Amino acid sequence: MLNIIVNGCFGRMGQELQEEINSREDLTLVAGIDRTTEDTAFPVYQSLAEVNEKADVVIDFSHESSVATLVDQCVQKQLPVVIATTGLSEETKQKLNEASRTIPLFYSANMSLGINVLIEALQKVTPALEEDFNIEIVEKHHNKKKDAPSGTALLLADSINDVSQTKKDYVFGREGKENENSLNEMGIHAVRGGTIPGEHTVIYAGNDEVIEFKHTALSRRIFANGALKAGEFIQKQKAGMYSMSELLK
Amino acid sequence: MLNIIVNGCFGRMGQELQEEINSREDLTLVAGIDRTTEDTAFPVYQSLAEVNEKADVVIDFSHESSVATLVDQCVQKQLPVVIATTGLSEETKQKLNEASRTIPLFYSANMSLGINVLIEALQKVTPALEEDFNIEIVEKHHNKKKDAPSGTALLLADSINDVSQTKKDYVFGREGKENENSLNEMGIHAVRGGTIPGEHTVIYAGNDEVIEFKHTALSRRIFANGALKAGEFIQKQKAGMYSMSELLK
Amino acid sequence: MLNIIVNGCFGRMGQELQEEINSREDLTLVAGIDRTTEDTAFPVYQSLAEVNEKADVVIDFSHESSVATLVDQCVQKQLPVVIATTGLSEETKQKLNEASRTIPLFYSANMSLGINVLIEALQKVTPALEEDFNIEIVEKHHNKKKDAPSGTALLLADSINDVSQTKKDYVFGREGKENENSLNEMGIHAVRGGTIPGEHTVIYAGNDEVIEFKHTALSRRIFANGALKAGEFIQKQKAGMYSMSELLK
Amino acid sequence: MLNIIVNGCFGRMGQELQEEINSREDLTLVAGIDRTTEDTAFPVYQSLAEVNEKADVVIDFSHESSVATLVDQCVQKQLPVVIATTGLSEETKQKLNEASRTIPLFYSANMSLGINVLIEALQKVTPALEEDFNIEIVEKHHNKKKDAPSGTALLLADSINDVSQTKKDYVFGREGKENENSLNEMGIHAVRGGTIPGEHTVIYAGNDEVIEFKHTALSRRIFANGALKAGEFIQKQKAGMYSMSELLK
Repeated sequence: MLNIIVNGCFGRMGQELQEEINSREDLTLVAGIDRTTEDTAFPVYQSLAEVNEKADVVIDFSHESSVATLVDQCVQKQLPVVIATTGLSEETKQKLNEASRTIPLFYSANMSLGINVLIEALQKVTPALEEDFNIEIVEKHHNKKKDAPSGTALLLADSINDVSQTKKDYVFGREGKENENSLNEMGIHAVRGGTIPGEHTVIYAGNDEVIEFKHTALSRRIFANGALKAGEFIQKQKAGMYSMSELLK
Repeated sequence: MLNIIVNGCFGRMGQELQEEINSREDLTLVAGIDRTTEDTAFPVYQSLAEVNEKADVVIDFSHESSVATLVDQCVQKQLPVVIATTGLSEETKQKLNEASRTIPLFYSANMSLGINVLIEALQKVTPALEEDFNIEIVEKHHNKKKDAPSGTALLLADSINDVSQTKKDYVFGREGKENENSLNEMGIHAVRGGTIPGEHTVIYAGNDEVIEFKHTALSRRIFANGALKAGEFIQKQKAGMYSMSELLK
Repeated sequence: MLNIIVNGCFGRMGQELQEEINSREDLTLVAGIDRTTEDTAFPVYQSLAEVNEKADVVIDFSHESSVATLVDQCVQKQLPVVIATTGLSEETKQKLNEASRTIPLFYSANMSLGINVLIEALQKVTPALEEDFNIEIVEKHHNKKKDAPSGTALLLADSINDVSQTKKDYVFGREGKENENSLNEMGIHAVRGGTIPGEHTVIYAGNDEVIEFKHTALSRRIFANGALKAGEFIQKQKAGMYSMSELLK
Repeated sequence: MLNIIVNGCFGRMGQELQEEINSREDLTLVAGIDRTTEDTAFPVYQSLAEVNEKADVVIDFSHESSVATLVDQCVQKQLPVVIATTGLSEETKQKLNEASRTIPLFYSANMSLGINVLIEALQKVTPALEEDFNIEIVEKHHNKKKDAPSGTALLLADSINDVSQTKKDYVFGREGKENENSLNEMGIHAVRGGTIPGEHTVIYAGNDEVIEFKHTALSRRIFANGALKAGEFIQKQKAGMYSMSELLK
């Protein structure tokens, strides 16, 4: 049985975590942390300092602004923590690094198991293909999404560049008469429409053969699932910084 | 048995026509027209005026520059003609219109049966979907292609706009923080890589459902096949202007 | 403002209808009908006979067993009705036909707008392609689904056969050394895995070109949306039998 | 400059090799071996024993029946050899093993670089996914192909099973009312139509996310390219048995 404290328990992802934990017998939500309170089966506090319930791990889906304080309190309580909040500043990431010297700390730019497995696959195949294949990314999201391309598309592109001998320049669209896709260019195309939760396809196109790697998200629940897997993993580790690539080993 | 004269018989598409006609027993290539000569089983002339062989139809895969003269000679000889040359000026198209008053003349911006069937399908479904679905196009071609997006992608987009109540603006890529795909915007994305002969996908994305229409070309032979279908069709018609939409009825 | 009575308001699809109606200002759920009661903002009855609220249309997502009675009561009250219950017997369908002589009645084997638009497209293109293209269907659903292939896959296949000159035999898998896909055979392949809500792809494969038509459902809400569109449509009609093909015209 | 002898130079794959070698300046076809002769720029012999031209490597695309003799002669001449003939018996494979004690010998069940890279990726991700994801394969080939599923689909399936803790049973189609896709079942679906050269998709479907790996062959040339890459690789090696997985390292 894993006893969990959720930081940001009433946010969109906090609610997904609640549902997922409730549906499983091997997990218990012992306490939530958020600014407001609602009628819930578990006690809710304003800060981790106030929590007296015994827990195995803290999972955080909150805002950049509350991460540093949470991490300090995890260090004080010697609690393993999963940071699933995105968009962290370099300063906050530095804070995570320091904390990881004394507690087990898990952080990944994308919490979905599938996207991280995809990255492992891309990094495996890129060295064998990069000389002869063009690499392009097509991502699809709902029509309310304001940023393009998606952070995940850029994460995939960076993961490919990290293992490439020739770093590729990103191109976010093509128009006109003078295009010619050289091997050091990577097109990243953002399709927008309807309520699509998220789809990412990486295309390796070579001489008379094409290899495609595609990830489809059917809902946000996959991020909650990934964070819970991270929670189970991190509470068994020694102090240190961990990410999905260690979990997947 | 259909007796065919091929204008531009040694060009890339002329050679495809030769191969296709040779492989079929119901078709005969009675004469070719081109500037050069090669060692062939059929006689080759510099102009249609010189051809004395009896034929049922002329198929033209040449250059804009030779189309007007060819059409004049078809009128003189009262020969049905298929114009499969692309990139015609308005002036030449006007010429085709005039000729079609006295001979059967076939002209389509894309000779593939599949692309034209796709257009029929798109025009069928767009009125029922346009209020609730975003429409986007992704096309893929080889890395030597210089123009983007492809002429066929624009033909598909225009065909959709032709039957839409709200005309959509074309967008050729997305980048930055301020995107929001309104219903009067159509993204057209050009993927480039390897030796891909040509792939076009039209995506209708709505509330919790997505409909996709995809055409994949495996080789240029489909354009030769389409032109031969047009040849069989046009030689049975009365004088007039015909396109794939009449053939498909 | 459309005032709606929902038959089967606490079933899975009834709940989807509730959510969708609540989220829209132009729709009101004036009464529900079901065997049980729950704490709801609208009154719930055991049968339509008991409902005194004024309504424009009845929408039914229930069981075969309750459809005949409901339709009788709609005739008595002269109320337009949408029958979205699936798996009806020939006897019940006959009942619907009789009722449609005196009230406007809407019935479709699949309530999703997208699937019905897809059928329109398939019936448009099949006559032009059937001589030269093999037709195959691949459908994907979650791993708990017991029937294979899906009812929708069979609906698509039947819709193609309805307009084909050569009726195709269905094949539900291929194995061994003696396969050869003749033009009068249609493979229907059922992929099962995870929580996939439903995906149907119809593939037309010909000489060097392939055309694919694909429908992806992201949730069951699309069936509620389709039924509400049908409700808005049917309440404006005269007595008669209507289906998605009339709505889409 | 790599000097190559081609065994089976007039077969379908032998011709692809000829074209590919002719188009490259760093490769020379110094001699061919086949039963018949044609008018070629290189000398043709009936057996490797007769060849006096100096070569760096032998590439074999022939029949099972001629492989054993060829390998014996390669041993005698101490020539590195690439065996690209498929459908070898256990006896012949044993012969290859023996020969590899004295010469460098390359053998792979599929010569395409892309398919072998795909296998590397599948074997990388399967251990992380197999507990939570169903795995299914869809392959598409032309309508003249007699065997189903394709040898490559079975190679992919076996490669997945090789690294899985729970070996999956193969299912070649689904029909009826009693299906339920357990985690120890793998559906392999063979779509047939038109002239499709070959497409293989491996689908991992889990809770609200799907990962797909797809390989598309645009022509048979990819097998010639793979064999030539193998030729360049093997001539630098010491005696031993090599396959694509060593080449890709």
